[in-house]
Amino acid sequence: MTRWLAPVLLPHLFVGIARAATFSAADIDTARALRDEALAGSGAYEIVTSLTTEVGPRPAGSAADRAAVAWAEDKFAELGLTGIRRQPVPVPHWERGTLEARTTAPFPQPLVAAALGGSIGTPERGIEADVVRFETLEALRAASRADVEGRIVFLSQPTQRATDPSGYAATVYNRVAGPSVAGALGASALVIRSVGTTRNRIAHTGALAYTVNAPKIPAAALSNPDADLLERMLQTGRPVKLFLKMTCRDLPYEASSNVIAEVPGTDLAEEIVLLAAHLDSWDLGTGAIDDGAGVAIVMATAALIRKSGLRPRRTIRVVLFASEEYQLAGAGAYARLPPAEIARHAVALEADSGGDRALALASQVPEDKLALVEEIAAVLAPLGIERGATTTRGGADIFALMRQGVPALQIAQDWSRYLDAHHSPNDTLDRIDREQIDQVVAAYAATAFLAAQAEGGFGRIEAPERTLPSTSGDDRSR
Amino acid sequence: MTRWLAPVLLPHLFVGIARAATFSAADIDTARALRDEALAGSGAYEIVTSLTTEVGPRPAGSAADRAAVAWAEDKFAELGLTGIRRQPVPVPHWERGTLEARTTAPFPQPLVAAALGGSIGTPERGIEADVVRFETLEALRAASRADVEGRIVFLSQPTQRATDPSGYAATVYNRVAGPSVAGALGASALVIRSVGTTRNRIAHTGALAYTVNAPKIPAAALSNPDADLLERMLQTGRPVKLFLKMTCRDLPYEASSNVIAEVPGTDLAEEIVLLAAHLDSWDLGTGAIDDGAGVAIVMATAALIRKSGLRPRRTIRVVLFASEEYQLAGAGAYARLPPAEIARHAVALEADSGGDRALALASQVPEDKLALVEEIAAVLAPLGIERGATTTRGGADIFALMRQGVPALQIAQDWSRYLDAHHSPNDTLDRIDREQIDQVVAAYAATAFLAAQAEGGFGRIEAPERTLPSTSGDDRSR
Repeated sequence: MTRWLAPVLLPHLFVGIARAATFSAADIDTARALRDEALAGSGAYEIVTSLTTEVGPRPAGSAADRAAVAWAEDKFAELGLTGIRRQPVPVPHWERGTLEARTTAPFPQPLVAAALGGSIGTPERGIEADVVRFETLEALRAASRADVEGRIVFLSQPTQRATDPSGYAATVYNRVAGPSVAGALGASALVIRSVGTTRNRIAHTGALAYTVNAPKIPAAALSNPDADLLERMLQTGRPVKLFLKMTCRDLPYEASSNVIAEVPGTDLAEEIVLLAAHLDSWDLGTGAIDDGAGVAIVMATAALIRKSGLRPRRTIRVVLFASEEYQLAGAGAYARLPPAEIARHAVALEADSGGDRALALASQVPEDKLALVEEIAAVLAPLGIERGATTTRGGADIFALMRQGVPALQIAQDWSRYLDAHHSPNDTLDRIDREQIDQVVAAYAATAFLAAQAEGGFGRIEAPERTLPSTSGDDRSR
Repeated sequence: MTRWLAPVLLPHLFVGIARAATFSAADIDTARALRDEALAGSGAYEIVTSLTTEVGPRPAGSAADRAAVAWAEDKFAELGLTGIRRQPVPVPHWERGTLEARTTAPFPQPLVAAALGGSIGTPERGIEADVVRFETLEALRAASRADVEGRIVFLSQPTQRATDPSGYAATVYNRVAGPSVAGALGASALVIRSVGTTRNRIAHTGALAYTVNAPKIPAAALSNPDADLLERMLQTGRPVKLFLKMTCRDLPYEASSNVIAEVPGTDLAEEIVLLAAHLDSWDLGTGAIDDGAGVAIVMATAALIRKSGLRPRRTIRVVLFASEEYQLAGAGAYARLPPAEIARHAVALEADSGGDRALALASQVPEDKLALVEEIAAVLAPLGIERGATTTRGGADIFALMRQGVPALQIAQDWSRYLDAHHSPNDTLDRIDREQIDQVVAAYAATAFLAAQAEGGFGRIEAPERTLPSTSGDDRSR
């Protein structure tokens, strides 16, 4: 049982008290109608089709990143949303360049690998060195400099499949922190087994985060079959040598934007229900599940509410964040809005878990607001959605708002297929299932509408710890 | 129901007559014991592990091709086979080089594609042209020059999944013949939807065959998701432009070899039961299913018979053919042995359908020898193997022997997963299932032994038509 599927056992007395603050029967009926309308066809599939066909891969700082911003504005307008605008964001611009990876001993073979996002390149002549294998980052941390210096470190830990992000949480730091841990021990480069569950011969990229106190070393992910191959060579007991040549590099920052649109509120229009997703993607696929699906879910949710002619009390704001994948530049810019602006955010939801079905409604709200969440969960229950955990990090783009007290709801989706394609060439439209994404929009629409109506709102939360276990993967680098 | 799964309905009288010529009870018992021994662990998995780990991709003419020849000799010796030798074969040497493919209109996106084996490269500046789509090769053949000239032809036909090679047979000529059909109509290049059943974003290569009377044009295969993407762009009704840049080229022929080993016969030692597979592979994967599995199956079969201490009547000869994938150079050299040598071949079997389970025993033998096949089939029946078709092309490497009258048996394997990985980066060891490949070796071992014992042998066959429908895919280019 995962944490966010754990049932919440509330004292009956507490539920009794809380009921006084919950929704009107009319609002519940409206939420149910929105839910059922989305189920019948939310339009999300068409939106992610449009984005992946007309823009495709859109890494931060690229020409396609700029095309995606223009696409988003046009799509918001087409969907009838208002207040369409850009928040300018300078974004990092990392260029993948080319990669050549091969074993040179004991058996020469080419390998399928991908540079980790943000990696430096190798010297032009490449790097050839003996491989030293560690199963985990912890084992690498425990290694001596003598074992590692001058070698290419191989982190071989596989990622486990699960309906929740627990598999990702267990291996993502190999990618994020591995390069600097290896660099600090004098390694010449790092290769990791891809953080992904597919056995296809494709590599999964994703951002690394160099620390300031370790030498930067080149880092790449091997496909799972290539990691297996390397392990078989290591099992011979003979020295294994790798050659790596990578031309990736950071270029100067580029102008990009968070793209914003709204369904205007009425009596509480100054208060904001934030629906977040990110517009950028990695470059290897077309950014369908990460995060075209999220973009489609939040756009379709707002469009559905708009189209229904409803006038929600609070403003429902959609923000498509820039450069989530690398350095969270858009989230950082948004979180630096003036405190009075941040304070307007009643609650935030982030869609960044692909397009597969919603399983649970998790939350991070004050205790005296849990009854609101319970009531929303009851509306979602016919979708097969359980009431999930009462703690959540919400998502990478909204976490900096949560750190400033903004409560969060989280529609926790099924991750069991997500890591098959995540950050890989396989992140393409065919991974999106129309029925499943409609169910997710159904959950978002009911939740967003009720959040906009909630009498008294969701209050403020204590700033969550940065080290709180994530329910949607790593909050620093997705 | 596929042709080779169709039951063979023999007149009872005929069976009665034929029974006089079939196997001794002792030989049947021995065949059953070999079958069961293989099922308990044939060693084939270890052989394909060794080949894919120690050699990996081994396209004809490459350094790895030469390494594979040395590996084969060593492995034959390790397995205790005798008469280990090379038949020198000059092989073509095509170099893949690099490929860049992208749409430039209406929406610029990079595409995942692979040059077809044998393709010429593009001019150094690349080719940019409008795309014209045809569903099938037949539709392209029916097109007018005005529709095609100067354009990049896109053949969009998908390959259907089946337990037999019927899906492959329906689309492989898009790859083999498409380039010259398009070239003859003035196309500037050809892209095909990969001949493969995976929806992963990987492209399937494979040989083309230029005809002498058409201009050579560059040709590549798109991954299935990329073909879908191109179709979506075409569905907008707006002109779609592709850019292609490929540096592939033919280099001078190189020396390679068919590698041969035997289990020596006794009273009929001059007669040969030929077990064929091919040693070369395409370059994108590690040649596990195509044809590491076949190599392992025939090696393990011979080793099992050798290890059992049996002295078969006929010589069981294993030939690992060179350059099957491109121009069938090894098969051509072998088929040009003197007629007296060819006449020594009592029967031939070819393993070139991956490592998945055997479904049927097909044959191409004279009618008066069908009873032998029935009796062999009865020994295979406990493996879940049916008596298959009484016509077969046998396989690409033995077809030229069949054209000279050599009968063939075929252990028809399950193709339902085969085209997921065939000719693609996914042709890696993890596609091999130990239990399934052991079952295949069980079938080969019983069949090869009984073929070596068969009183009176299998006679001679009429040369099959070159246009006979194939039961193991295309006979010209695999």
